[in-house]
Amino acid sequence: MVRFTHRISKKAGLPPGTLIHVGDKKTEKARLRLMDYTQEHFEERDLAAIEESFSYREKDSVTWINVDGIHQVDMVEKIGRHYDLHPLVLEDILNTNQRPKMEDYENYLFLILKMITYGEAQKLLYIEQVSIIVGRGFVLSFQESEGDVFESVRERLRKGKGRIRKGGPDYLAYALMDAVVDNYFLVLEKIGEDIEELEGEVISKPVPETAESIHNLKRELLFLRKSVWPLREAVVSLEKGESPLVQERTTVYLRDVYDHTIQVVDTIETFRDMVSGMLDIYLSSLSNRMNEVMKVLTIIATLFIPLTFVAGIYGMNFKYMPELEWRYGYGLVWVVMVVIGLLMLLYFRKKKWL
Amino acid sequence: MVRFTHRISKKAGLPPGTLIHVGDKKTEKARLRLMDYTQEHFEERDLAAIEESFSYREKDSVTWINVDGIHQVDMVEKIGRHYDLHPLVLEDILNTNQRPKMEDYENYLFLILKMITYGEAQKLLYIEQVSIIVGRGFVLSFQESEGDVFESVRERLRKGKGRIRKGGPDYLAYALMDAVVDNYFLVLEKIGEDIEELEGEVISKPVPETAESIHNLKRELLFLRKSVWPLREAVVSLEKGESPLVQERTTVYLRDVYDHTIQVVDTIETFRDMVSGMLDIYLSSLSNRMNEVMKVLTIIATLFIPLTFVAGIYGMNFKYMPELEWRYGYGLVWVVMVVIGLLMLLYFRKKKWL
Amino acid sequence: MVRFTHRISKKAGLPPGTLIHVGDKKTEKARLRLMDYTQEHFEERDLAAIEESFSYREKDSVTWINVDGIHQVDMVEKIGRHYDLHPLVLEDILNTNQRPKMEDYENYLFLILKMITYGEAQKLLYIEQVSIIVGRGFVLSFQESEGDVFESVRERLRKGKGRIRKGGPDYLAYALMDAVVDNYFLVLEKIGEDIEELEGEVISKPVPETAESIHNLKRELLFLRKSVWPLREAVVSLEKGESPLVQERTTVYLRDVYDHTIQVVDTIETFRDMVSGMLDIYLSSLSNRMNEVMKVLTIIATLFIPLTFVAGIYGMNFKYMPELEWRYGYGLVWVVMVVIGLLMLLYFRKKKWL
Amino acid sequence: MVRFTHRISKKAGLPPGTLIHVGDKKTEKARLRLMDYTQEHFEERDLAAIEESFSYREKDSVTWINVDGIHQVDMVEKIGRHYDLHPLVLEDILNTNQRPKMEDYENYLFLILKMITYGEAQKLLYIEQVSIIVGRGFVLSFQESEGDVFESVRERLRKGKGRIRKGGPDYLAYALMDAVVDNYFLVLEKIGEDIEELEGEVISKPVPETAESIHNLKRELLFLRKSVWPLREAVVSLEKGESPLVQERTTVYLRDVYDHTIQVVDTIETFRDMVSGMLDIYLSSLSNRMNEVMKVLTIIATLFIPLTFVAGIYGMNFKYMPELEWRYGYGLVWVVMVVIGLLMLLYFRKKKWL
Amino acid sequence: MVRFTHRISKKAGLPPGTLIHVGDKKTEKARLRLMDYTQEHFEERDLAAIEESFSYREKDSVTWINVDGIHQVDMVEKIGRHYDLHPLVLEDILNTNQRPKMEDYENYLFLILKMITYGEAQKLLYIEQVSIIVGRGFVLSFQESEGDVFESVRERLRKGKGRIRKGGPDYLAYALMDAVVDNYFLVLEKIGEDIEELEGEVISKPVPETAESIHNLKRELLFLRKSVWPLREAVVSLEKGESPLVQERTTVYLRDVYDHTIQVVDTIETFRDMVSGMLDIYLSSLSNRMNEVMKVLTIIATLFIPLTFVAGIYGMNFKYMPELEWRYGYGLVWVVMVVIGLLMLLYFRKKKWL
Repeated sequence: MVRFTHRISKKAGLPPGTLIHVGDKKTEKARLRLMDYTQEHFEERDLAAIEESFSYREKDSVTWINVDGIHQVDMVEKIGRHYDLHPLVLEDILNTNQRPKMEDYENYLFLILKMITYGEAQKLLYIEQVSIIVGRGFVLSFQESEGDVFESVRERLRKGKGRIRKGGPDYLAYALMDAVVDNYFLVLEKIGEDIEELEGEVISKPVPETAESIHNLKRELLFLRKSVWPLREAVVSLEKGESPLVQERTTVYLRDVYDHTIQVVDTIETFRDMVSGMLDIYLSSLSNRMNEVMKVLTIIATLFIPLTFVAGIYGMNFKYMPELEWRYGYGLVWVVMVVIGLLMLLYFRKKKWL
Repeated sequence: MVRFTHRISKKAGLPPGTLIHVGDKKTEKARLRLMDYTQEHFEERDLAAIEESFSYREKDSVTWINVDGIHQVDMVEKIGRHYDLHPLVLEDILNTNQRPKMEDYENYLFLILKMITYGEAQKLLYIEQVSIIVGRGFVLSFQESEGDVFESVRERLRKGKGRIRKGGPDYLAYALMDAVVDNYFLVLEKIGEDIEELEGEVISKPVPETAESIHNLKRELLFLRKSVWPLREAVVSLEKGESPLVQERTTVYLRDVYDHTIQVVDTIETFRDMVSGMLDIYLSSLSNRMNEVMKVLTIIATLFIPLTFVAGIYGMNFKYMPELEWRYGYGLVWVVMVVIGLLMLLYFRKKKWL
Repeated sequence: MVRFTHRISKKAGLPPGTLIHVGDKKTEKARLRLMDYTQEHFEERDLAAIEESFSYREKDSVTWINVDGIHQVDMVEKIGRHYDLHPLVLEDILNTNQRPKMEDYENYLFLILKMITYGEAQKLLYIEQVSIIVGRGFVLSFQESEGDVFESVRERLRKGKGRIRKGGPDYLAYALMDAVVDNYFLVLEKIGEDIEELEGEVISKPVPETAESIHNLKRELLFLRKSVWPLREAVVSLEKGESPLVQERTTVYLRDVYDHTIQVVDTIETFRDMVSGMLDIYLSSLSNRMNEVMKVLTIIATLFIPLTFVAGIYGMNFKYMPELEWRYGYGLVWVVMVVIGLLMLLYFRKKKWL
Repeated sequence: MVRFTHRISKKAGLPPGTLIHVGDKKTEKARLRLMDYTQEHFEERDLAAIEESFSYREKDSVTWINVDGIHQVDMVEKIGRHYDLHPLVLEDILNTNQRPKMEDYENYLFLILKMITYGEAQKLLYIEQVSIIVGRGFVLSFQESEGDVFESVRERLRKGKGRIRKGGPDYLAYALMDAVVDNYFLVLEKIGEDIEELEGEVISKPVPETAESIHNLKRELLFLRKSVWPLREAVVSLEKGESPLVQERTTVYLRDVYDHTIQVVDTIETFRDMVSGMLDIYLSSLSNRMNEVMKVLTIIATLFIPLTFVAGIYGMNFKYMPELEWRYGYGLVWVVMVVIGLLMLLYFRKKKWL
Repeated sequence: MVRFTHRISKKAGLPPGTLIHVGDKKTEKARLRLMDYTQEHFEERDLAAIEESFSYREKDSVTWINVDGIHQVDMVEKIGRHYDLHPLVLEDILNTNQRPKMEDYENYLFLILKMITYGEAQKLLYIEQVSIIVGRGFVLSFQESEGDVFESVRERLRKGKGRIRKGGPDYLAYALMDAVVDNYFLVLEKIGEDIEELEGEVISKPVPETAESIHNLKRELLFLRKSVWPLREAVVSLEKGESPLVQERTTVYLRDVYDHTIQVVDTIETFRDMVSGMLDIYLSSLSNRMNEVMKVLTIIATLFIPLTFVAGIYGMNFKYMPELEWRYGYGLVWVVMVVIGLLMLLYFRKKKWL
């Protein structure tokens, strides 16, 4: 559960806007990467200190500053001051428990997304918070650690492929969102494979671990849904938000992201239904196995208990037991017992137990 | 699960509008069919290359170009360029993971539908994506493979029966949608028959495979719902969309399609409820059988265990066991045992186990 | 399931507006009944052919034509032509798979209702589609077969009781709807009795058939809900529809029908909840019985198995078994066994099994 | 179920506005009580006939006529005629199956409420319909039988305590509603106590009757919800209804009633969730007990069956069984059996069954 | 359940606005604390009587009066009279059964919140009602007992840190709400830890107490949801309420509180889903254990019952039993029994029971 509520306790009771990092410290030192571009020009550099980026603000170009590692609170604060960000925005960037959302602060838009990867071995989701600020001529993105899904966007910027260098900061923000959402499909695909595998297992050879796997899958889908569901709303409010920061021609792309988000949410719901169904099948196959075990027991016991009783009868030591003296007594007893046994077998056959 | 997410991974990270076919390559070579008609005139031909169709655009007639096999990306791209389609539209046509939707691009309407068939043997749904573009004077339709539900529409076009040759491209699009939705009823009918059959089975002779069948049916209904549910919205936005491409007199037909869609969705929901109910019945009949097995075991064991004990007593070899010497000891033991047996049977009768 | 989807397959692929009867052929020959009335005047006759009714259209009076048996497609077509009905309306009248709905075609209103009866013996619902057309000065009603719930309306028309002869066609349509909805309460009452009976049974003496009855009841309630639920919307759109065909003073009556519909829907939902609850009780009482069976088995087995073991010990044939020689060995064994038995009984009492 | 649908059948087929009492005849003779008041003046009397009240209508004072026993249809009709009530209103007053609702008839407001009491012994809800008419200068209230929750309102009227004598008919109606809703809390409190008691029982000593109690509680909560849920809407439409009959300053009180209703609905939902949860616990404790029973059986059987087998071996009568001749054969067998027994016990300990 | 409905019965039947304390008397004597501040000035004092605070009302400063212990009805009444509060407001303050809500009384805003703590030992929630009145220049807060989550707010006021001394009463009210909501995260964190612990337990070693713990957790989450859910609405109506008492610049902070509330609600829902899932796992692991117990019993019984039967055969005392005379009869019997035993073991291995 710690995964749900990242020790928010250390924040409780502090005034709003107090900047404290809430989350795992995922990177040793924060890494700053700057990309500055117009349609013709392109520059890319790693920054040693955030101050190096400030000069780019005056330019006409689009500047994208990507921060890997938000645990360096002072740096985030400096950026905040330079770009005039509201204290609550900075607080939200640092607190990795946020839900995905979009907020319009007139001079800039503030977006929170969740970047998700699926550890196939442990079958666990890893969720990283990505905050994006879209302003006039600049985009800031904050991540918890290095390693992201934005490499393809960077590549397109470098090569100037497609619309990306022609679009403004809004298009860049769209491209980042699109990369995040596209990645959800990868996660879903892997989960889908796990479900398929589990489905085979639940029917052919259910073991107690199957229930555990189902439960884990269910929980991870809960997590996933919690991380993706609010994104729908965020994208809609971006598309319909009528902020001058979002150009008319970008909205068609946002609609596309929206479609993808819906598709992701849809698939999550379908997966959840399927996983729930699997638990039912698991339980029913437990009952079936119990039935089978019971049948074996019942057949054996029902067959031999009466026979043992008969044998017990003639094991008694009464002085006067005429049958014991009969010449064919023993043979007769065998006949009786075989008949009883056959009747039992007939009965079981009638019951469809054999 | 692969059925859910068709390897979308190969697309992740590419710029929007990159044209890559996502789906199974269902046809060897794409087939192009063109129909061109006015109320009086009708022409039908198979095209060797898409360029042959371009001359028809100038005409006043309605041109319907049907593409079977969207894996030929270059051809789709050519069509897109000629008809001025937005790159995102082309991307959606090629990516067969789309949800049904309707998008208004001013100069044309873009519709995505799912054509569904039900393989009765394997009890699996086969879902094919159909994309329809409705423009001024033309309708483009893209399918994944040959073989479709549009043959009746073609026949009506050829024979000039009904309103179809009088209506514009919007009416043709309606006719295609109607054919797709009508076909859902066929699928539902077959599923309905499977449910009926399963319902009989679950009550009369439930076997472990029954649970599996129920589970499969449930999953296919999930698929079906996922494919049909969003269509509702698409049809509504077409009907109320106030696009000049949709004529006033066509809306009453769209309302009819809408009614049918609702009916389909309704029936799917009812089927889902019924299938869920069947699982409960299956589980309860498992419990009932377990009860029956247990009862047989209990009756036999309870009847004979005490009797065997009695026999055991007189099988002991103590030197001084007065009963053994009695003249009628053996007879008495039989009497005792019969009495015990009868009492047991009475008890079972009282318990309603016999 | 056939009950759900009446072989709609024979219609698939036909152009819209093709008139084909979909449903069971419930009546041999269609019956036509005409009632024509004003506040003062009243006329009632059976028509041999539909053409006889056409002259009434010119009159100022209200004409109600009731058709029993819609399988006579040609007749329905004639009516359609005479009263200028849209082909889709005729199609809907003939296709008995429609959901309840209200459509405003400016010159007339088109209503679809479901008339429901409950076969108490088979515990099945019989659903008949009733289509009503309300125009200026006329009401047309189409039923699948003779025998309906409108007899009371006819009686009131004949006797001129109440407002009915003073109201226009809208009031007549209301009266028909009211009769249909009132009849739902009768159906609910019967189902309610069945639920009550089943509830007693499920607690006092649950048998496997109980589960089946619960399942059937559940399914019939599903059917019922499917038939009534959309009616809500239909009545609302009639009440708020602002059609000039519905007089101001009739709306208060429509609101009353609406209230009743809500009440029906409410009761169906409550019934569904109750029936679901019953299944849980049934399952728990199955478990209880299993527990009881197990307890009996365990008590008997646990009591006698150790005793039989003791008897077995002294049934061994070892040469040197000192106990066997003891004078009171046999008596002692009995004492031991009685003590063991009593201890077991004490243990069971402690466990609350006795 | 009779409780759900009070024999509405006797009404089916009658014209709207036909006055027939549907419900149990709860009082022998209807009782009429009149209260007439202004801020200064107060009069209270029992009426022998409803006509005695008619003179009060002219006065400026507020007149409250309370009718206990609506089965006297003719009297209700007289009141209806005198106060110009719509026939449908009278019909609704007499039919005790109504849902709570508020209807605005311009000259008067019509309110239906459900007065609920909880029979603690039988654990059943008793539901009585209360209809309230609020007009200019008068309030009419109709109850099914004597005995109500309005005594406190009467007391306040008599004593002139609080705002009640200063407020108009709308305030009086509010006071009546408030009394009804306040009473729901009493019912909830008692149900809450029953739930608490049951919760202890389900954990400490579940018996089959527990399931029955849970089921009953569930059903009564269903009833309760059905009776209270629609009230929310009724109160809202009264508060926002903008009827001139409701004074501005009364709306704040209506908002208070609304808050209470929401609270009641909330608590019902919470109770329902709790009761559902209890059934799960009950079922899991059934399974636990079964497990325990099985364990006892398995321990005893597994311990003694092998031992009995060993004793059986040496009970055989073969001529040549060397062990039987051994000097310490008997002792050795005992050793073997004790060892087997101990191994079994160790095994059970390892399995955590002991 | 008493925790749900705090003996509201003593209030039923009283006129609205009657001031009666409903709740537990949590503090011996009410404690009054006053804080008065502007940006420059700060004063803090404990009041012996409420009258001491009245003089502060004239001042321009912001006055915050905090009342610990609402059971002193007369004092609350005095405050009410001095600050012109509506009787219903006072009633709501005293009745601790309220749902969270926001009401706009023009001259002041009235807020009800729930302060929640989680007793880790008993795993129970303690819920305390906090009422806040925001007026022009003053904030009144009422709590049930001493000890709260506002200490951090007081500290910030004392030190003049952050915006708090610059903001008006609306900002102070925000700060109080924020403190309450922030505290929910602490509660969630603790519950999350309990869930995590229980999750391990349910899989590794489920005992009957596990079911009880799950049930308790479920119930506490129900309580929590009931206390938090309506807050969403309250915060929204405060933010969008357009009351002049809420300054423009405060709304961004309210939006932040809103975000937090949503996050809390979200997490509660996720927790509820997880806890429900745990019960399923618990039940499935009960079934698994039953299966295991049954298997042990079946293996032992099935192995030895036939063997015991064989031994029983040769324990019979027939005179003529040829086998008994055989030289190697005894050895042969052993061989037969070992073979039977091995076949059984093979069978179990095939069944995967061993």
